[in-house]
Amino acid sequence: MNSNSVTRGRFITLEGIEGAGKSTQIANLAALLQELGCRVVTTREPGGSPIAERMRSVLLDAQNRGMNETAELLLMFAARAEHLEKTIRPALEVGTWVICDRFTDATYAYQGGGRGVNPGRIATLETLVQGDLRPDLTLVLDLPPEMGLARARARNGGETDRFEAEDLAFFAAARAVYLARAKAAPERYRVVDAAAHLDEVTRQVRSLVESFVRHWDSEA
Amino acid sequence: MNSNSVTRGRFITLEGIEGAGKSTQIANLAALLQELGCRVVTTREPGGSPIAERMRSVLLDAQNRGMNETAELLLMFAARAEHLEKTIRPALEVGTWVICDRFTDATYAYQGGGRGVNPGRIATLETLVQGDLRPDLTLVLDLPPEMGLARARARNGGETDRFEAEDLAFFAAARAVYLARAKAAPERYRVVDAAAHLDEVTRQVRSLVESFVRHWDSEA
Repeated sequence: MNSNSVTRGRFITLEGIEGAGKSTQIANLAALLQELGCRVVTTREPGGSPIAERMRSVLLDAQNRGMNETAELLLMFAARAEHLEKTIRPALEVGTWVICDRFTDATYAYQGGGRGVNPGRIATLETLVQGDLRPDLTLVLDLPPEMGLARARARNGGETDRFEAEDLAFFAAARAVYLARAKAAPERYRVVDAAAHLDEVTRQVRSLVESFVRHWDSEA
Repeated sequence: MNSNSVTRGRFITLEGIEGAGKSTQIANLAALLQELGCRVVTTREPGGSPIAERMRSVLLDAQNRGMNETAELLLMFAARAEHLEKTIRPALEVGTWVICDRFTDATYAYQGGGRGVNPGRIATLETLVQGDLRPDLTLVLDLPPEMGLARARARNGGETDRFEAEDLAFFAAARAVYLARAKAAPERYRVVDAAAHLDEVTRQVRSLVESFVRHWDSEA
């Protein structure tokens, strides 16, 4: 395989707290990109490859409440290293676009904002695991945490994993980190108002991504 | 609890490749220290606390062959962070001695020597997870890998986990790292000839540890 002759795929991540509507928008986005002629893989974190999914089950299992915060952080990046090697990098290298439900921004939001882990420790691990790989575009689906949690709980019939069981203050802190990161790097992030009607959110996501695709096409 | 009034427990680790006889010597050592009047906890890595044992099962499962080496390294330290918080530090703080079957030297030997992970990455994670905590004494049970593997395979009836299934070159590299680390820090390490007859190994271990205990008593 001569990967030099192939244009690398684009790496798009969707971020947002529970109930922001990421799954729906990922499906819409995959359909849009396929209409535009791209090969697309959709995946998720934590998880996205067989071994990473086993790590996900340890991370999310409600029985593992009380997991040490450094252990949680390392396990998250362990799953990410697997996911990158087995799923994300191989797809990008052959020109396939990757749409990922959460990535390292979620670590800054949940472990950093939610649990209070020093962002410098997260940055150290980000470099150790990713080298210089960063998403090309990150959509932050933003909504008030009380609205997100009400949606997530209605959807799950009251069952919650180890993160969904956190309180409003945890998600408010995570949201604040997402917004701060978006503000600090506007070339990579776009914030979408996910409290709007579903049709309107879908329209915003389509429009943002179409303009990015036009921009990238004009670069190529 | 006023931990200022309590002498901190000592942290002793046993290291060595498969079949070196660590389990037997840990049992002997715990008995010796109890005879000498110490409270003792014996534990192991990876594992040593409920969540860390779940991580251990992901690490050792033969189905997870092909795990990315950075993922393996991070998962090892994730389990270590849990083990330190839940088992090792609480014991040391109340004056209990901890005898641990493998610790971070094993990461340098197996992931560093065996898999070729850059030792600088291991050192970064060692500091991130342990701060300045290091074992007070590390016994390296040394023997030729072909002898160790033959013993381990006889013991396990042919069943091997993900590490035991590695080849002779892997264990030869791990052994070389153990010996190099012992040579570089002789104040902390003692190398025991584990190829000797069991009674002789037991005698060596007892004698080494008794002399350390006398040394520490004279310091106190």
